Amino acid sequence: MIYLDNAATTFPKPENVYLAMDNANRNIGVNAGRGSYKIAQEASKLISDTKTQLRQLVHADSSSSVIFAPSITIAFNQIINGINWISNTTVYVSPYEHNAVARTINKVAIEKNLKIKQIPLDENTLEVDLEKLKYEFSKDKPFAVFCTHISNVTGYILPVSDIFCESKKYNAITIVDSAQSLGLIELDSKNINADIICFAGHKCLYGPFGIGGFINVTNVPLAVFLTGGTGSDSLNLNMPEGRETRYEASSSNIVAIAGLHAALECLDITCHREKERQLTDYLICQLSTIDKLKLYLPKNKDNHIGIVSFTHEELNSEDLGKILDEDFDIAVRTGYHCAPYIHSFLNDKQFLGTVRVGVSQYTSYEDIDALAKALKDIND
Amino acid sequence: MIYLDNAATTFPKPENVYLAMDNANRNIGVNAGRGSYKIAQEASKLISDTKTQLRQLVHADSSSSVIFAPSITIAFNQIINGINWISNTTVYVSPYEHNAVARTINKVAIEKNLKIKQIPLDENTLEVDLEKLKYEFSKDKPFAVFCTHISNVTGYILPVSDIFCESKKYNAITIVDSAQSLGLIELDSKNINADIICFAGHKCLYGPFGIGGFINVTNVPLAVFLTGGTGSDSLNLNMPEGRETRYEASSSNIVAIAGLHAALECLDITCHREKERQLTDYLICQLSTIDKLKLYLPKNKDNHIGIVSFTHEELNSEDLGKILDEDFDIAVRTGYHCAPYIHSFLNDKQFLGTVRVGVSQYTSYEDIDALAKALKDIND
Repeated sequence: MIYLDNAATTFPKPENVYLAMDNANRNIGVNAGRGSYKIAQEASKLISDTKTQLRQLVHADSSSSVIFAPSITIAFNQIINGINWISNTTVYVSPYEHNAVARTINKVAIEKNLKIKQIPLDENTLEVDLEKLKYEFSKDKPFAVFCTHISNVTGYILPVSDIFCESKKYNAITIVDSAQSLGLIELDSKNINADIICFAGHKCLYGPFGIGGFINVTNVPLAVFLTGGTGSDSLNLNMPEGRETRYEASSSNIVAIAGLHAALECLDITCHREKERQLTDYLICQLSTIDKLKLYLPKNKDNHIGIVSFTHEELNSEDLGKILDEDFDIAVRTGYHCAPYIHSFLNDKQFLGTVRVGVSQYTSYEDIDALAKALKDIND
Repeated sequence: MIYLDNAATTFPKPENVYLAMDNANRNIGVNAGRGSYKIAQEASKLISDTKTQLRQLVHADSSSSVIFAPSITIAFNQIINGINWISNTTVYVSPYEHNAVARTINKVAIEKNLKIKQIPLDENTLEVDLEKLKYEFSKDKPFAVFCTHISNVTGYILPVSDIFCESKKYNAITIVDSAQSLGLIELDSKNINADIICFAGHKCLYGPFGIGGFINVTNVPLAVFLTGGTGSDSLNLNMPEGRETRYEASSSNIVAIAGLHAALECLDITCHREKERQLTDYLICQLSTIDKLKLYLPKNKDNHIGIVSFTHEELNSEDLGKILDEDFDIAVRTGYHCAPYIHSFLNDKQFLGTVRVGVSQYTSYEDIDALAKALKDIND
C-alpha cells in the first residue's frame, strides 16, 4: 500500500515510538502517581518530562501549563466550554477550522449567545485577507479568535502571528490549532501571540493516538468542563486547584505518553519541514501535468506545505478515491475532511469534496510517481 | 516488584494484548473510516467487532448502542451531562461511587438544581440497606440511580440488580459503573435492569489505557456533550444523528481498541472469578493473622472479591505504603482511592485513608505471602 493519508494521521511512526510503547506497556503500564510506589513515580516522571519537551518545542517557559487530554478534540471541548464567555460578544474563527473547533463553538455559541464570524478569505488566493480582517475587527471587536495553523484540507499555512497580533489589540483570547503544524514548522509561543496552543500527538509529532492536549501559554482561566478522579484530593467533590491536575481527570494513558515522548526525542523540525517542502513541490509539479485535475492551492507557495487537495472534472472524489484504493492500492482521503466552512470557498461540493493527499517524512518520490501514474492511467 | 495495585489498573496484561497493540501500531495504525481505503476499513471492522464482543459479554442484543470513549471517566461525563435532567428531582448514588461519578454529578446537580442522596448503607456490615432504600425511594422518588458494581475501595459487590429493580418501580434511569466488575464477575444487562453500563478497558477486562465507554442498553436519549470531527457528515455543524457516531467525536484510538479486542478474545470470566475469589480468601486469611491491622470488609463474604483495604493502628496508610514500596518492593495504593463518600463509613481519615490491595489473574499466593511477611516484619 502507498499511504498518502498522513493528514489524518501520520503512518508509520518512527520505530522507537513502537518500541517505547511496547516497553511502557510491559514495564511501566501502571497508574501514575507521584506519592506512590516506584514505577508509578517513574510513570509520573515520564509524564512530566514529556510536558517539558512540549514546552521546549514551543519555546514556552515553565510558567505555562501543559494539559494532557486523550485527543486534541477533547482539549478543544475543554477550552471552548471552559472560557469565561460574555454573551453578545463575537468570536472569530478561520474558514479553515476543523470540526473539533467548528462544531464545538457552534454548540457553545448557541448556549452562551455568542456571534460567530469567519476571518475573511480572499476567494481568488484562498488566503486570509488581513486588511479586511482589520476592518472587521474595528467594526466588531473580537472576544476570542480561533485559528488553525495549517489547513488540513489545502495545506495552507495561515498567518496566525499577524492575525493574533491584530487580535491582541482588542485583548482577544487567541487559540491556535497546531494539529497539522506542530512538529512540521516552527511554532514559537512567544512570537505567535497565542494564549493557548492545542496539539495532537498523532499527526506531525509522529506520536500515537490517545494523546493530545493544550499548552495554556498565558494561563487563561478556564472553568472545569471534565470532572473525575485525579488520584489527589479525593475527598474534594470539586476538581483540585492544581493548574494542570484541575483539567486532567482520569488515569493517564502512560503508553501513549511514552510513545509521544519517544517521538519528541527524535523530532527534527528543520529536517521534516525541508523534506515535506520538497515532496510538496514535487507533488504539485506532478499533479499539474495531469489532465482533468483541479488543484486547490494558496496563491503564495511559501504559505503551503504537506497537503494537496484536488478534484477531477469527470469523477467525483469518493469514486476517484475508491479507484485509487482498489485498482492501485493507494490510500488517500476523500470528502470534506471534517472542515465544514472552507468548501464554500473551494466550490467543491459538486465533486463531493476533494481528494486529499498528505505526505510525511516516510513518503518517497516513488509514492508520488505512483499516484501520478495512477491518475494518468485513470484518465486514459 | 510485587504488584498489588490491580484495582488502579491490572498489570501486567496478557501477552496477546501487547502483541495486538504492537501489531495494530505497525499495520493498521490509521484513521478508521468505513468508506475509505482498505486498512482504514480493516480498522473500522476491528472497532465494530470489539463492540460486538462487548455486547455479547453483557448479553445485550444488537439494538443496544456501544459507545467508545477514551476512558470511563469521559463516558460518565457524557452520560451525566447528557441526561435530560428535570430540576428539583433526586438522583441517588451509592456511597461507594468513584469521583468519575461523584464529582461529575456534584457539578451537574449544581447546574441543574438536582438533589443528590446516597443509597443507605448499614455501618456495621458496610453493605447496602435495601429495606431503608425502599423507604427512601417511597419518600423521595429517584429520577436516576448511579451504582458501582464493585467498590474500588473494599471489593464489596453491591446488590445492583436489587437496587435497580427497586429503581425501575419509579421509572428511574439506572447506570452501573462496571470498572471493577466487568470481566471479573457476570454482568447480564437483561437481569441487572441497567439502562447504561459504563466500562473501563484497562481494569478487569485486561485491556490497555485509552479505551472505555458505555453500553446504552435501552438507548436512553442523551444530549451531545462532546463535539468534534466524526469523519462523516462533515458539513453539518451539529454532531451527526447516528446512535453511536453522535457520541464519538475525534479519531478512534485503534491501537487501544486492538488491545481491548485481544483482551476480550481470551477473557474467561469463570476462571478469573474463581482465581480471584481464592486469592481474596487467602489474602484475608493471611492479613487477619497480623497484629495492629484493621480490615474493612463487607459482612457477607459472598459479596466480596478482588480488593482488600486495611489500616494499621500505629502507622498512617501513606507511610505504610511507602515502607512496603521502599523496603519490600511491594506496590499497593494508599489514601482515599478517588472514592469521596465511603470514608465517612470506614472512619479511616485518622489513618489518611486505607492501604488497598488489589489482586489479578497474575497475582500469586507467594505475592500475598510476601505482603504478609512484610507487614509482620514491620510490626516486629
